[in-house]
Amino acid sequence: MKPGTPHLDIPFYQAAGDEVEVFEHAWKNRLPLLIKGPTGCGKTRFVAHMAARLGLPLYTVACHDDLTAADLVGRHLIGEGRTVWCDGPLTRAVREGGICYLDEVVEARKDTTVVLHPLADDRRILPIDRTGELLEAPPSFMLVVSYNPGYQNLLKGMKPSTRQRFISVRFDFPRPEQEEAVLIGETACPPDLARRLVAIAGALRALKDRDLEEAASTRLLVYASLLIKDGMDPIAACRVGIVESLTDDPEIAEGLMEVVSATFGR
Amino acid sequence: MKPGTPHLDIPFYQAAGDEVEVFEHAWKNRLPLLIKGPTGCGKTRFVAHMAARLGLPLYTVACHDDLTAADLVGRHLIGEGRTVWCDGPLTRAVREGGICYLDEVVEARKDTTVVLHPLADDRRILPIDRTGELLEAPPSFMLVVSYNPGYQNLLKGMKPSTRQRFISVRFDFPRPEQEEAVLIGETACPPDLARRLVAIAGALRALKDRDLEEAASTRLLVYASLLIKDGMDPIAACRVGIVESLTDDPEIAEGLMEVVSATFGR
Amino acid sequence: MKPGTPHLDIPFYQAAGDEVEVFEHAWKNRLPLLIKGPTGCGKTRFVAHMAARLGLPLYTVACHDDLTAADLVGRHLIGEGRTVWCDGPLTRAVREGGICYLDEVVEARKDTTVVLHPLADDRRILPIDRTGELLEAPPSFMLVVSYNPGYQNLLKGMKPSTRQRFISVRFDFPRPEQEEAVLIGETACPPDLARRLVAIAGALRALKDRDLEEAASTRLLVYASLLIKDGMDPIAACRVGIVESLTDDPEIAEGLMEVVSATFGR
Amino acid sequence: MKPGTPHLDIPFYQAAGDEVEVFEHAWKNRLPLLIKGPTGCGKTRFVAHMAARLGLPLYTVACHDDLTAADLVGRHLIGEGRTVWCDGPLTRAVREGGICYLDEVVEARKDTTVVLHPLADDRRILPIDRTGELLEAPPSFMLVVSYNPGYQNLLKGMKPSTRQRFISVRFDFPRPEQEEAVLIGETACPPDLARRLVAIAGALRALKDRDLEEAASTRLLVYASLLIKDGMDPIAACRVGIVESLTDDPEIAEGLMEVVSATFGR
Amino acid sequence: MKPGTPHLDIPFYQAAGDEVEVFEHAWKNRLPLLIKGPTGCGKTRFVAHMAARLGLPLYTVACHDDLTAADLVGRHLIGEGRTVWCDGPLTRAVREGGICYLDEVVEARKDTTVVLHPLADDRRILPIDRTGELLEAPPSFMLVVSYNPGYQNLLKGMKPSTRQRFISVRFDFPRPEQEEAVLIGETACPPDLARRLVAIAGALRALKDRDLEEAASTRLLVYASLLIKDGMDPIAACRVGIVESLTDDPEIAEGLMEVVSATFGR
Amino acid sequence: MKPGTPHLDIPFYQAAGDEVEVFEHAWKNRLPLLIKGPTGCGKTRFVAHMAARLGLPLYTVACHDDLTAADLVGRHLIGEGRTVWCDGPLTRAVREGGICYLDEVVEARKDTTVVLHPLADDRRILPIDRTGELLEAPPSFMLVVSYNPGYQNLLKGMKPSTRQRFISVRFDFPRPEQEEAVLIGETACPPDLARRLVAIAGALRALKDRDLEEAASTRLLVYASLLIKDGMDPIAACRVGIVESLTDDPEIAEGLMEVVSATFGR
Repeated sequence: MKPGTPHLDIPFYQAAGDEVEVFEHAWKNRLPLLIKGPTGCGKTRFVAHMAARLGLPLYTVACHDDLTAADLVGRHLIGEGRTVWCDGPLTRAVREGGICYLDEVVEARKDTTVVLHPLADDRRILPIDRTGELLEAPPSFMLVVSYNPGYQNLLKGMKPSTRQRFISVRFDFPRPEQEEAVLIGETACPPDLARRLVAIAGALRALKDRDLEEAASTRLLVYASLLIKDGMDPIAACRVGIVESLTDDPEIAEGLMEVVSATFGR
Repeated sequence: MKPGTPHLDIPFYQAAGDEVEVFEHAWKNRLPLLIKGPTGCGKTRFVAHMAARLGLPLYTVACHDDLTAADLVGRHLIGEGRTVWCDGPLTRAVREGGICYLDEVVEARKDTTVVLHPLADDRRILPIDRTGELLEAPPSFMLVVSYNPGYQNLLKGMKPSTRQRFISVRFDFPRPEQEEAVLIGETACPPDLARRLVAIAGALRALKDRDLEEAASTRLLVYASLLIKDGMDPIAACRVGIVESLTDDPEIAEGLMEVVSATFGR
Repeated sequence: MKPGTPHLDIPFYQAAGDEVEVFEHAWKNRLPLLIKGPTGCGKTRFVAHMAARLGLPLYTVACHDDLTAADLVGRHLIGEGRTVWCDGPLTRAVREGGICYLDEVVEARKDTTVVLHPLADDRRILPIDRTGELLEAPPSFMLVVSYNPGYQNLLKGMKPSTRQRFISVRFDFPRPEQEEAVLIGETACPPDLARRLVAIAGALRALKDRDLEEAASTRLLVYASLLIKDGMDPIAACRVGIVESLTDDPEIAEGLMEVVSATFGR
Repeated sequence: MKPGTPHLDIPFYQAAGDEVEVFEHAWKNRLPLLIKGPTGCGKTRFVAHMAARLGLPLYTVACHDDLTAADLVGRHLIGEGRTVWCDGPLTRAVREGGICYLDEVVEARKDTTVVLHPLADDRRILPIDRTGELLEAPPSFMLVVSYNPGYQNLLKGMKPSTRQRFISVRFDFPRPEQEEAVLIGETACPPDLARRLVAIAGALRALKDRDLEEAASTRLLVYASLLIKDGMDPIAACRVGIVESLTDDPEIAEGLMEVVSATFGR
Repeated sequence: MKPGTPHLDIPFYQAAGDEVEVFEHAWKNRLPLLIKGPTGCGKTRFVAHMAARLGLPLYTVACHDDLTAADLVGRHLIGEGRTVWCDGPLTRAVREGGICYLDEVVEARKDTTVVLHPLADDRRILPIDRTGELLEAPPSFMLVVSYNPGYQNLLKGMKPSTRQRFISVRFDFPRPEQEEAVLIGETACPPDLARRLVAIAGALRALKDRDLEEAASTRLLVYASLLIKDGMDPIAACRVGIVESLTDDPEIAEGLMEVVSATFGR
Repeated sequence: MKPGTPHLDIPFYQAAGDEVEVFEHAWKNRLPLLIKGPTGCGKTRFVAHMAARLGLPLYTVACHDDLTAADLVGRHLIGEGRTVWCDGPLTRAVREGGICYLDEVVEARKDTTVVLHPLADDRRILPIDRTGELLEAPPSFMLVVSYNPGYQNLLKGMKPSTRQRFISVRFDFPRPEQEEAVLIGETACPPDLARRLVAIAGALRALKDRDLEEAASTRLLVYASLLIKDGMDPIAACRVGIVESLTDDPEIAEGLMEVVSATFGR
């Protein structure tokens, strides 16, 4: 697969609300979009799905503390004896009129995200200081950012001046039946297994903020389901696929395993 | 649009006070200008408008923490086997006698903005250390900076010695009738819709500092209006266009939605 | 031996639980794997063993503070008058479909771990910004990371969004009889010596976190055993092979030597 | 104006004390000079004036955090296939025997200013390590630095070993009659206007450290005077020229405006 | 002496404990060795001695902050129109089966020490990324590292996972009679002078960590002895040769001078 | 004066203790020398004097943070189509057997000072990596470094292992009569003036650490004396030459001026 060409196969996505329409409206009106929701609830998959659906190239950037403006916009490199400008993912998306998706945008430093401002305006321009270029975003370009409001730490909220440039959609874990559908859709597992795994996930999510730092994501269920399908013992599969990925504390892990074995029976 | 050439069409701008005259006076007297005001109240648009009106090229720099003096002034690059000097936006504006607009100037490090000093003086010169050049700004050159005083944090105020080189204009949210005019002017929406959206904005702005960190900007109204025009349900449009962009707290969001549905009726 | 070719001799590994099966399941299902456990409990040996067993090339990266994303992915080098792209170990592993093993992954900086995200997804792709390439990982590629939960400090914990991309296996020091077996297997020492050394290790591990920063690894026992076999005095061998490698504090060292001489008798 | 040639017209400067003599004595005795004083009290203008008066070329360097020793002294660049040494402003001033003026010297990092030491000695030499040159400063060369003592911070004070190489002059805001003279001299405004503006400045300066972080500089008065001369309403001119440049707090601004309107009468 | 050839003359080394045997055992069993001890206590000399004794070439690297992995492993040079790979000291030692001695290893950056891991394992291999080579260390190769536990700063401790790859030997300052022998051997001073200087050193070493940051090394004694032989007053010689090199605090210096004059008499 | 040739005239230097002999002894015994002392007490002048006296060329390097090892050792330059090696000051001193004087050595980064180690040893060699040369220092070569212990900051102390390679001399302000002699020698001022200035300095030095960060150096007295000789009013001269260079605090400055006017009488 090359970027710049539409995906041929559209990744599976199970819509939970009106997010698909909102995305399309936003794209049509050239408005940037902000997606909020917990880890592993399908934000990335959703964007991938929409990009495929709209036939646009997708540029994903996972944000982190050390992300600099240059990492987004581009930098000079030294080529054969001369300096070569090398576009960053944001610039590339603008040039090609694709979707630029910044994942976990609050992880980036606030001052880095400031470079998005002129793009998220009605101006839709990207001035590149270092080369003196000024890119106008083509109509098909779209800026999408996401973050996890639960994990957001004090120091790292988004600046209001950044937030108010986006329209916003809130995601959450899918409802049980939806999640079962997702599991079945992803791993073709038997419905009963799906139901059990979703039950486990529900029980584990209730522990968030008390014993667990983070809730169990749908992805972990997919992993467990894959392992079980591959013939692993369900309980062992849940241990390596779900429990150990959630905590390092041996005692908490034991507790979670109790939940698992209560579900699958010993 | 290419930088360096005057805009042909003058962007729509609805003046709220005497800012247009102040700008012209400043430009005539070669004084640098500082614009303060909250997010989304039209600072950027105003500068674009004035640049078009005066027929000057506009160089916008979105300031951020990574911005270095070199990003403003220029740097050496390596060309075919030799070192080439490459102007930064500030230098380019000086050379061409255009307007250099530094957006959110407090986001840049204080030490970086020091390079503006000789330009913001009566000397109006730009010494370029690295090449030994000393540029005299032509009469038509103007330096404009803006920032959001509400969001200014302790660590990032402007230095007094920088501030006192500018004359300053304060922006605020437009009065209701003005704001309606803006909405209609921007999105050609029906006056009734404009009135309702402005009413919502008024109600939401009253919550600032208590439940909301920041007041709703005019830009959000424009977004909502666009979505509604595009056929979205007004209430859903207000949710994604206004409410979710203002808060992450589900309960506060519910409260704001009450305001919205009280305005549009369920 | 060249990387890229399967190891011919499979390194000795004494399994302690079901880790071998888990590894194989993970590899078959293309799931990335996370191994947790203290220093010197055999994580590295285990991965080497599995790589040999599966006949895959193994790329090991010991993570540290200064590891940059470029160190993993690769960078341009300047060759004879021209720039050459040079793959990093991660890229090489992806290209060849081998195993990439990141040791002590929490030691690396965050931007480094973010590079792993698209590979640890179901997407299994590796975008290389600098060259614009986008590698799809072949089915035989596998990503394995490890860390030491005891030594892990909070700031450097893995982000939940990273952790939940892996399935996880927990390691611990082998049980005494296993460890004796390892010693005998590695150094062909008499069982009695093995028993004594393992006893010493047990006593020393109890001191972890109070007097010692780290527990004594099996490797140190192997060293001591080798030296003793070579004719060194057991007590001197334990001093240079175990005790002095664990602490710099002369008093603590004395204390540990007491344990040793209590074991071997003076 | 080109650097390197004496100014033909001597910029207007209204002496407040014996600074002119001190400067001349220093220049005659080849002593470096340090000028301290608040923002906008005429330090830069004074140096320009003296340079013109003594008929010396003036090299101004606006110090900032990114300034390196190489920026002052010079560096190698690559010209047509060969390495070319390119003088920095300090070197140029030494070569030509002009005045080198480092503005806001504390903005540069301490270790950068160390390169001034051999020049500020009785040795008056500038060794250029990179080329092996050793420049002797001609008698007409003079080194002048300035800074604002009120705004000095911990990391950036001057090192005592640097300071003690200079003789120092302290500037302060001019006395009222002098300030009026300055205003009239600069903007040719009617004496009555000058008197009023100076009165406002006096009232505002009394607020320093209580409500205002910094006192109003003479420069702001010049701005206001220019705007008024240009036909702006005096009160509006004072608002944009003085008040808004001093504070962001709307209430304090109101208070200051009271002072203004009390002076001009409503 | 050229590196790569065995030493012909064995440097004088006066063993203080069983370090010689330990070294030989380690070498025979192919175990890497870690030597700990204060500055100037003869670690380097010991390694040189052992290398000569075992008839192995010795490659010494003094580690510091800027030591890069390339400095150890090697880099390309461009010879007559073609590129030549040039081994670093570590590579050379591996190729020739000599001893590679890294002095003050904690001073090196972490990425440098990581290069050592595969060599310090039982794998004993050195992968060279840039050339794609993978060297197997011959049986006669040995890796020796040293550091100063007193001076070790917190940020730069060795990681346990690195330490536990070595067997460790602890060094200390020579016993008085040994040190006198060294002084006489080095500077041919009269025995009485040697005795006095060593007495001073002993007294000063007792102050370490309370009044002095570091203990007096044998080298300082050599300096003092040289100066005295050259006709300087013994007390003055000790002041400039020993005392002032140990402390900047005038009072502590006074105290040390008392010790000196107690030894030499006033 | 050209570097590389012996000074013909010996700069005036008034010895305060046995430093001249120490220097000569050190030079004769080929020991490197470390000079400590406060700002402006004549360290630099002393070295210049000794160099002249011994008839050796003197190479002074003012250390700063940008100083790289290449700046000391030398670099390649590209001339007309070919590369030329260009010695740095250290290399030049070694080649010519002169004195290399590094001023304020703690200001340089540690990796820069590492190049001094082999020269400060008894080996007295300077390996030049880039050219593969290995220079042996001739007997007449001497390495001298200086720093100001009072101002030494935490981050930048010298490493004990570096310090112990030097013999050390401590400088301090001269005794009153000596200082008067210096003043008269330097500025040919009348003895009475010298006495008064020295009295002022004495009074001001008593304030060190309480009101003043640093004591008044002899250099400042020279400045004041020069200005007075040049016809300036003594009190004004002391203000600009001494007081204002010592403090920024207006109140402290007033206090110091009291001392001055008490000395000269109003």
